[in-house]
Amino acid sequence: MKQIRIVQYGVGPIGASILRLARKKKSVQIVGAIDQDPSKVGKDLGEVVGAHDAPWGVKVSVDAAKTLAGPVDVVLHSTSSYLKDVMEQLLACVNAGCSVISTCEELAYPFRKSPPLADKLDKAAKREGVALVGTGVNPGFVMDKLVLTLAAISQRVDSVRVQRIVDASRRREPLQRKIGAGMSVEEFAEKTAAGVIKHHGLPESVAMVGDGLGIPVDTITETIEPMVAQEDIRTEFMKVAAGRAAGVHQIARGFSLDRERIILELKMYVGAKDPADTIELTGEPNISMIIPGGAHGDIATAAVVVNAIPLIVAAPAGLVTSRDLPLSFFSSETSSG
Amino acid sequence: MKQIRIVQYGVGPIGASILRLARKKKSVQIVGAIDQDPSKVGKDLGEVVGAHDAPWGVKVSVDAAKTLAGPVDVVLHSTSSYLKDVMEQLLACVNAGCSVISTCEELAYPFRKSPPLADKLDKAAKREGVALVGTGVNPGFVMDKLVLTLAAISQRVDSVRVQRIVDASRRREPLQRKIGAGMSVEEFAEKTAAGVIKHHGLPESVAMVGDGLGIPVDTITETIEPMVAQEDIRTEFMKVAAGRAAGVHQIARGFSLDRERIILELKMYVGAKDPADTIELTGEPNISMIIPGGAHGDIATAAVVVNAIPLIVAAPAGLVTSRDLPLSFFSSETSSG
Repeated sequence: MKQIRIVQYGVGPIGASILRLARKKKSVQIVGAIDQDPSKVGKDLGEVVGAHDAPWGVKVSVDAAKTLAGPVDVVLHSTSSYLKDVMEQLLACVNAGCSVISTCEELAYPFRKSPPLADKLDKAAKREGVALVGTGVNPGFVMDKLVLTLAAISQRVDSVRVQRIVDASRRREPLQRKIGAGMSVEEFAEKTAAGVIKHHGLPESVAMVGDGLGIPVDTITETIEPMVAQEDIRTEFMKVAAGRAAGVHQIARGFSLDRERIILELKMYVGAKDPADTIELTGEPNISMIIPGGAHGDIATAAVVVNAIPLIVAAPAGLVTSRDLPLSFFSSETSSG
Repeated sequence: MKQIRIVQYGVGPIGASILRLARKKKSVQIVGAIDQDPSKVGKDLGEVVGAHDAPWGVKVSVDAAKTLAGPVDVVLHSTSSYLKDVMEQLLACVNAGCSVISTCEELAYPFRKSPPLADKLDKAAKREGVALVGTGVNPGFVMDKLVLTLAAISQRVDSVRVQRIVDASRRREPLQRKIGAGMSVEEFAEKTAAGVIKHHGLPESVAMVGDGLGIPVDTITETIEPMVAQEDIRTEFMKVAAGRAAGVHQIARGFSLDRERIILELKMYVGAKDPADTIELTGEPNISMIIPGGAHGDIATAAVVVNAIPLIVAAPAGLVTSRDLPLSFFSSETSSG
């Protein structure tokens, strides 16, 4: 069996969890990793990601060009949420002849917000005969791919509502801080206005769902409010007093001619009651779907990225999205039928 | 916009519901229909399927060769559950240069039960540069494709359980008869032994799920028992007395080395309590998913078939399955992004 050679670009918490999972796939060979953090560069990758089978004999490098010179088949990329900030990184991967799976939220469906960047990536990938995709649990799965898949049993879809309620209590500390848990409501408002507190990707999911279902979305709006703690909440990392922010409440809406047709609602906060992912399609027939507890953010993002490895290798050259790929499980243990 | 020219092969209840839906897609042109029933042959297709916008100006023909000579892009095929019974029909379509979407349950994943037939179809399709798929709501979606899609957020899958509970009370009369509703338990047992009462496709779904998740299934078993009415049940078409059969309870199991790893359970009966589709993946993490009410059998099968039209046109030549296709909604109203 020929192994798929991968490089991890960005060895933060998500990159580390991607790597620990990729390491378990027999048909994957981790051949390199790129990161700028001086505390990681030059160290053994297995040790940096806290793998129990470290060392792996692969070192973290600050030199992207050298690492990508490979040979490398697929780059797993996890450095930033902003497409413009990662364009050079992505183009470097593509120009080195590597396919890319990235957790950059804005890459998940960039055709609406950044058509010129999408076009540039698509052209470069086609020229090099490789494929790129931006994916993860959200955007990439719960609020878009799963909606489109469920719509396979629809004869007509008039409107879509997705609600994702995530209990951040058991998530890592940086995530709890990132969603504003523990802040005063005023501080939350300031950080939101400054763009510091935000879950990225909801507008991308609205656009993917609209295009996939043939709903002509002319306007996308997005609001961010705090979920305010109704009682004192204690997590492993912090105490949130009643009346302070416990996390985010974000809603993205897609309108067709002033009619609200797509509503994607995210409540991610510490102490969340009844966490779940819920999809409702109104049409012929009405269809609803519930994932009790909800897809686990960190576990699921690493899973979606690693599970996409064989799909990106087989994808047609160019920029693709979760919508185009038959997302599934990557079993590298047995042959497929 | 170039229209996709389709022919319906088999104008029974399922074929009729497929046609009524296909008629609504602007980018589809219905150019012919094939059926052997003398009461349909020569009649206007729109009238035969009870369309409110009949006549359609297309007649039902008994002459498959002439109808397929077209030009035709895609044949929607719905004549039998048994692959060997439809091989000649499928090969005629393929040899006429048509792609095929069929509701033949045994075509949904024929690699285990009928490898030579699968191989013959695959070779013929590749030679002609067309694609075939067997799909529908089940097999094709609820118990296989949806399971595999959900597993995109799994890091490891140890076992799978799917339960589909269908209330047949509001389904068409032939379906209520087909599942044995109203029979004595003895008669049900006789009909089951004779192979008359049976929902087809569970073993195909077990095989697709096993291959897709890398679960090495060495043995597939299937049992069929009656669901016995606990009280008198009345439907639009029949009365089922307490103690008589109300429908089927089928379970297909996939084993790896004597360990049960895939369980697909179907309860389809009149008066079913709490109809729902439930998927449970045990692994890292445990994941469950519920469709309250369950996917509506008749509506969903027509939807899956028609929604697959653009996908089969774009598919690589050969025999493919739901597993390979990014099943979704077919919007023919707006362009995709």
